[in-house]
Amino acid sequence: MKIKYGMVGGDLSAFIGEVHRKAIGFVDDTELVSGCFSEDLKKNTHTAGYYHICKERTYQNYQLMATKEGQRDDKIDFVVIATPNFLHYEIAKAFINEGINVVCEKPLCFTVEEAKELKKLSEEKNILFAVTYTYSGYSMVKYAKELIKDNKIGDILNVYAEYPQDWLISAVSKEASPANLSIWRLNPEVSGITNAVGDIGTHIEYTVKYITGLKLKRVQAKLNRFGHQLDLNANMLVEYENGVNGTYWCSQVALGHPNGFKIRVYGTNGSISWFQETPDYIMYSSVDGITSKLIRGADYVYGNSKVLNKTPKGHPEGYHEAFANIYKTYINTLRKIKNNEELLESDYDFPSVSDGLEGVEFIHAVVKSDKNDSIWVNIKETE
Amino acid sequence: MKIKYGMVGGDLSAFIGEVHRKAIGFVDDTELVSGCFSEDLKKNTHTAGYYHICKERTYQNYQLMATKEGQRDDKIDFVVIATPNFLHYEIAKAFINEGINVVCEKPLCFTVEEAKELKKLSEEKNILFAVTYTYSGYSMVKYAKELIKDNKIGDILNVYAEYPQDWLISAVSKEASPANLSIWRLNPEVSGITNAVGDIGTHIEYTVKYITGLKLKRVQAKLNRFGHQLDLNANMLVEYENGVNGTYWCSQVALGHPNGFKIRVYGTNGSISWFQETPDYIMYSSVDGITSKLIRGADYVYGNSKVLNKTPKGHPEGYHEAFANIYKTYINTLRKIKNNEELLESDYDFPSVSDGLEGVEFIHAVVKSDKNDSIWVNIKETE
Amino acid sequence: MKIKYGMVGGDLSAFIGEVHRKAIGFVDDTELVSGCFSEDLKKNTHTAGYYHICKERTYQNYQLMATKEGQRDDKIDFVVIATPNFLHYEIAKAFINEGINVVCEKPLCFTVEEAKELKKLSEEKNILFAVTYTYSGYSMVKYAKELIKDNKIGDILNVYAEYPQDWLISAVSKEASPANLSIWRLNPEVSGITNAVGDIGTHIEYTVKYITGLKLKRVQAKLNRFGHQLDLNANMLVEYENGVNGTYWCSQVALGHPNGFKIRVYGTNGSISWFQETPDYIMYSSVDGITSKLIRGADYVYGNSKVLNKTPKGHPEGYHEAFANIYKTYINTLRKIKNNEELLESDYDFPSVSDGLEGVEFIHAVVKSDKNDSIWVNIKETE
Amino acid sequence: MKIKYGMVGGDLSAFIGEVHRKAIGFVDDTELVSGCFSEDLKKNTHTAGYYHICKERTYQNYQLMATKEGQRDDKIDFVVIATPNFLHYEIAKAFINEGINVVCEKPLCFTVEEAKELKKLSEEKNILFAVTYTYSGYSMVKYAKELIKDNKIGDILNVYAEYPQDWLISAVSKEASPANLSIWRLNPEVSGITNAVGDIGTHIEYTVKYITGLKLKRVQAKLNRFGHQLDLNANMLVEYENGVNGTYWCSQVALGHPNGFKIRVYGTNGSISWFQETPDYIMYSSVDGITSKLIRGADYVYGNSKVLNKTPKGHPEGYHEAFANIYKTYINTLRKIKNNEELLESDYDFPSVSDGLEGVEFIHAVVKSDKNDSIWVNIKETE
Repeated sequence: MKIKYGMVGGDLSAFIGEVHRKAIGFVDDTELVSGCFSEDLKKNTHTAGYYHICKERTYQNYQLMATKEGQRDDKIDFVVIATPNFLHYEIAKAFINEGINVVCEKPLCFTVEEAKELKKLSEEKNILFAVTYTYSGYSMVKYAKELIKDNKIGDILNVYAEYPQDWLISAVSKEASPANLSIWRLNPEVSGITNAVGDIGTHIEYTVKYITGLKLKRVQAKLNRFGHQLDLNANMLVEYENGVNGTYWCSQVALGHPNGFKIRVYGTNGSISWFQETPDYIMYSSVDGITSKLIRGADYVYGNSKVLNKTPKGHPEGYHEAFANIYKTYINTLRKIKNNEELLESDYDFPSVSDGLEGVEFIHAVVKSDKNDSIWVNIKETE
Repeated sequence: MKIKYGMVGGDLSAFIGEVHRKAIGFVDDTELVSGCFSEDLKKNTHTAGYYHICKERTYQNYQLMATKEGQRDDKIDFVVIATPNFLHYEIAKAFINEGINVVCEKPLCFTVEEAKELKKLSEEKNILFAVTYTYSGYSMVKYAKELIKDNKIGDILNVYAEYPQDWLISAVSKEASPANLSIWRLNPEVSGITNAVGDIGTHIEYTVKYITGLKLKRVQAKLNRFGHQLDLNANMLVEYENGVNGTYWCSQVALGHPNGFKIRVYGTNGSISWFQETPDYIMYSSVDGITSKLIRGADYVYGNSKVLNKTPKGHPEGYHEAFANIYKTYINTLRKIKNNEELLESDYDFPSVSDGLEGVEFIHAVVKSDKNDSIWVNIKETE
Repeated sequence: MKIKYGMVGGDLSAFIGEVHRKAIGFVDDTELVSGCFSEDLKKNTHTAGYYHICKERTYQNYQLMATKEGQRDDKIDFVVIATPNFLHYEIAKAFINEGINVVCEKPLCFTVEEAKELKKLSEEKNILFAVTYTYSGYSMVKYAKELIKDNKIGDILNVYAEYPQDWLISAVSKEASPANLSIWRLNPEVSGITNAVGDIGTHIEYTVKYITGLKLKRVQAKLNRFGHQLDLNANMLVEYENGVNGTYWCSQVALGHPNGFKIRVYGTNGSISWFQETPDYIMYSSVDGITSKLIRGADYVYGNSKVLNKTPKGHPEGYHEAFANIYKTYINTLRKIKNNEELLESDYDFPSVSDGLEGVEFIHAVVKSDKNDSIWVNIKETE
Repeated sequence: MKIKYGMVGGDLSAFIGEVHRKAIGFVDDTELVSGCFSEDLKKNTHTAGYYHICKERTYQNYQLMATKEGQRDDKIDFVVIATPNFLHYEIAKAFINEGINVVCEKPLCFTVEEAKELKKLSEEKNILFAVTYTYSGYSMVKYAKELIKDNKIGDILNVYAEYPQDWLISAVSKEASPANLSIWRLNPEVSGITNAVGDIGTHIEYTVKYITGLKLKRVQAKLNRFGHQLDLNANMLVEYENGVNGTYWCSQVALGHPNGFKIRVYGTNGSISWFQETPDYIMYSSVDGITSKLIRGADYVYGNSKVLNKTPKGHPEGYHEAFANIYKTYINTLRKIKNNEELLESDYDFPSVSDGLEGVEFIHAVVKSDKNDSIWVNIKETE
């Protein structure tokens, strides 16, 4: 059964829209049929033409798109929202209200209130809603989750997670004048109350939760803005509901790290380490201190990690495949829903609107702690 | 302009056919419209149906496909040959004769004579012919080529290349009875005169040539068959036309190496190392002995490596993207030919039928040396 | 000129005493001539005999040793204190009072008051006092210090340091009964108010200070005791006097880390990373994002790192040499003092009694923060 | 019991003499009492004075030293020969003839005949003779040997060993004039018939034999001299007596490798890899393809690797300790001989004069193959 989708944002010049399309391209029998790719008419038309989208389904704005698609018999099965952060909320709401399933870029929205509303509306309208926390799509992230679930590292003792990048290093030396708001991520109107924490800190928050199953209770944070309005660097202490602690660090000014997301989980019987820049393996240390390399595609790998596997061991998979794995599960579940098939727990192995809400809560707790001399702030009481 | 292609071999159960289709999927505006995916009627029909290929263009055998497609006004722009090795020659020939462009899996064919014939025919018929030596498609392999071409390592002093895998380790302990010819790669009728050397040794031969520009002059080889008719392991000394030497090793029984293709080139001013399992970077050592990590997507990367780049630095690309890069260049060149646009040297940045021929010559020289107590055998005098 | 030394603690069965002796053995023309190696008479006599120490200078207790050595014309040039932590203070004081130079294991003592007293006494008596923070002795730690001092990474933006070990993992599962105080490090009477923070957290504190020159202002800490009286794991946020932040983590229950001390310093123009388990190199990332491996013994290395270098590049140095480098500088300075030679700044390139004091202040600030719900605690106001 | 030794060569300005002395310093109760450190009278006197050697036992030439020491009741227990290669033979012979035990640098001597003579004489005179192939002294090299002996990798299928260095890269660009014989290693009169093969190729030959127990049968070799009289680079195919093959490569012009000795052994049940620049661990791959890091000092380590272990896991040992391990065993065995204690097989765990002989045979076979268009040459028939 062909699954048809539309897209808001993501014209041909935008990086992430193209990643979404290529990732969906890994899922057989899917088609882009509708879109509002840019507010810029020329860019919108050009992108639509490139993808052979008919004029009728090339929309000037997202409201029109939501309404018109909502009225069609052959309406799109889902919409991809790939716009800057500040538009996520209203666009998602518009499509939910038309009963159209949503895949939204992270962070889900600006305020906890908005996030709760999106969650509530989705449930009322039976919307299948995914938030693209890409890194949970990696095969070996899924395998790490299986190993921890199956008690291979015992009780967790500590979590040590970091997400350093270096692409904004040049921003540090610039004065924090309106001019350098040209970097939209440093502009609060577009990005919201955080930059680094919202952009990459939330990946730590979600992916650690995904792998470990630990629920975050409270956080201490110290943000560094280096002359800007928003953070470029953040050191955080965290505590989970079971009393376990950990450390999170995210930075966009850490030279030597193109995209150095790394998670380490230490337990009573073992430990696991995964590094985004070499995503096809995890390091597993056993209780006798032997550290082993476990690789994607090996015979011993099981669970969704195995199911989603595309190439044999040693033939690297990367960012596109991680993204594709999220879409593969999401679209497969959409198909099962359309066919009235029974849904399994594994059919929900993608980041949901609830996960999106928790990401927004995390952001607000972090900022609140930083504003209050880095005291502990509970995740659930931030607004 | 939409580019339409057909495929021989590669039904849904085959690994490499799927990789070809996904890789082509990375190139915008392409479509699979015709095919003869399997000799097995059921598999053929099923695969064709899955890809919405019309009955008229679902063929029972490749001869019929070549003839019928050759007669159509809207004939396919190119055919992908993804069958076992022993069929490559005759299928390629059939499509060339119909004036249809060819992308063929490696090794190109069995004998040097066949390879020379395919080369000659392609030239006569103006066929754009590619052989899918995948690894030359990696972005950082291309960057290594640029650096060496631009004299960044000076004159080459030695080449050290290895391609160890471990997936056939269980074959070692089995007796070499007809039964275990169930592994088709160890069956001379399907694989030809070699197994490991043909399957992976040829990747060393081609990729070293691609990166360094060195022309192979002669080779010494010792093959190990461990009880089988064909080789599972091979140690080789090589000499290039300029007198430089090197060592090649390939193995399918080297435990710990899922797909450990590694090339190291040492020069008077620097050295370069690339490893397939972490394909997104190369290590570069300068004349003062400092070893640096150079990464895909960084600002300093230039040449085709930059042009073909899809994701930002630190967002891993893998095997699919390497494959896609070959197709991207090949299909782009096809488009330019159809548009009568002028072709640049960079338009031929994919492995050609000449490269396929040299691969076959390499295989024959290696086997001849092994048969003659590992004496030097010249590449160009093997038949 | 021969330099003669004595030792308190460190009988033949103790690990660290032997390391001190072997490290001193790297310094030419030194001799062990006096000692009180154990409270156990048999162990003491046996060890003294093994080292050919005359009976007259084999002492039953440290008080006697201090007094008797103090009275000799040929008294020892320095004493090494290698006993458990709780004895450091009184032993050091006894030898200082006799005008004998001291090399003391870390942590210096239990309380900030004691540490201040030792510092004051040392100054009054012109004692050359070293505290063996071993890791600052590594050649490449010294090179990292030089590079940062010479502005090779620009202004520091963040520090990320960790010291995970796994040798106490079995303590986690045991009940915190008096019985398991058999691990003396978990016994407050022997170890003081901390275990992990005192034992390895102080190495982070000192070595970061040594490399970066940053002065610690305040700290937030969360200790984990896992059922014991003392900490086995600690997560810390730190702030330096110039407003820069960082994260420290130490653990003795982190499986997979035999002795994983790692320091990363990020600046506006570069970053530096050093890892204790491969101590012979540092990774240096430049502002263009290229990460290079800089190695001990290379031509470009300068400063004390070069002076102390013993083996050519690529011939690994380890823990013994790091220890030896501290002694080499300390003993060389002793010789210069005895010869009334002029002393240079580089003659004081070893951890001093002031560094020992700051280590004790750090410990107390960390424990105070942990007791007060992890609020910020200033290093200088902890008592 | 104190063991007293003398030294020929190795004045204070020489690198390797100092390493010998420091390595012996790791063995308790040893003393340097006699020497002929240099032909240069001043250097000899200075070095002897530095080590408090009495005038009577400071000799002007090695003949005198051998004769005089041979006549003393308290003659040295062994002599260390640390001169350039061309003197090894005659010096060793002189001391053997006086009944003095010998530790000699490698290569043992120039010709196979000389080597056989030294072996024969040593046996006749009951000399304990060691040749300092340093790398076999590393703790984890010994552990690798144990694992292979205990069948942990099954039957060996292939050996892949390399020893690249880069310290002679500048020699490549120089003309091969008499002037550049200032690099004595490139001067046949001092070095013999090879440079790189003799200096580092022999380390491959010995260490592979040590780890695997495989006996070398024949070799094919291609040497590269880059304008000089002696080799700077060599690629070799080898065959062992049991028919297994392998590849050896050594180079002094491979940029990026300070001292990159690496051995990989592949078997039917596992594989082992050891790398000299990180000597404290080996990588072990099991038959299921899992690669694990095994570390020095861990509980699972056994055999001589455990016995000789000095520092706990994670506290790096290096080149000095490898050297010291050879001396520790050698000197311990000397002590047992002097005490008429029974000797065990493990007492001979150091490279012997027979190993020295085989190294010389290897050198000659390699050079002969290279001279004969790289044909196979048997190790045992080279003279």
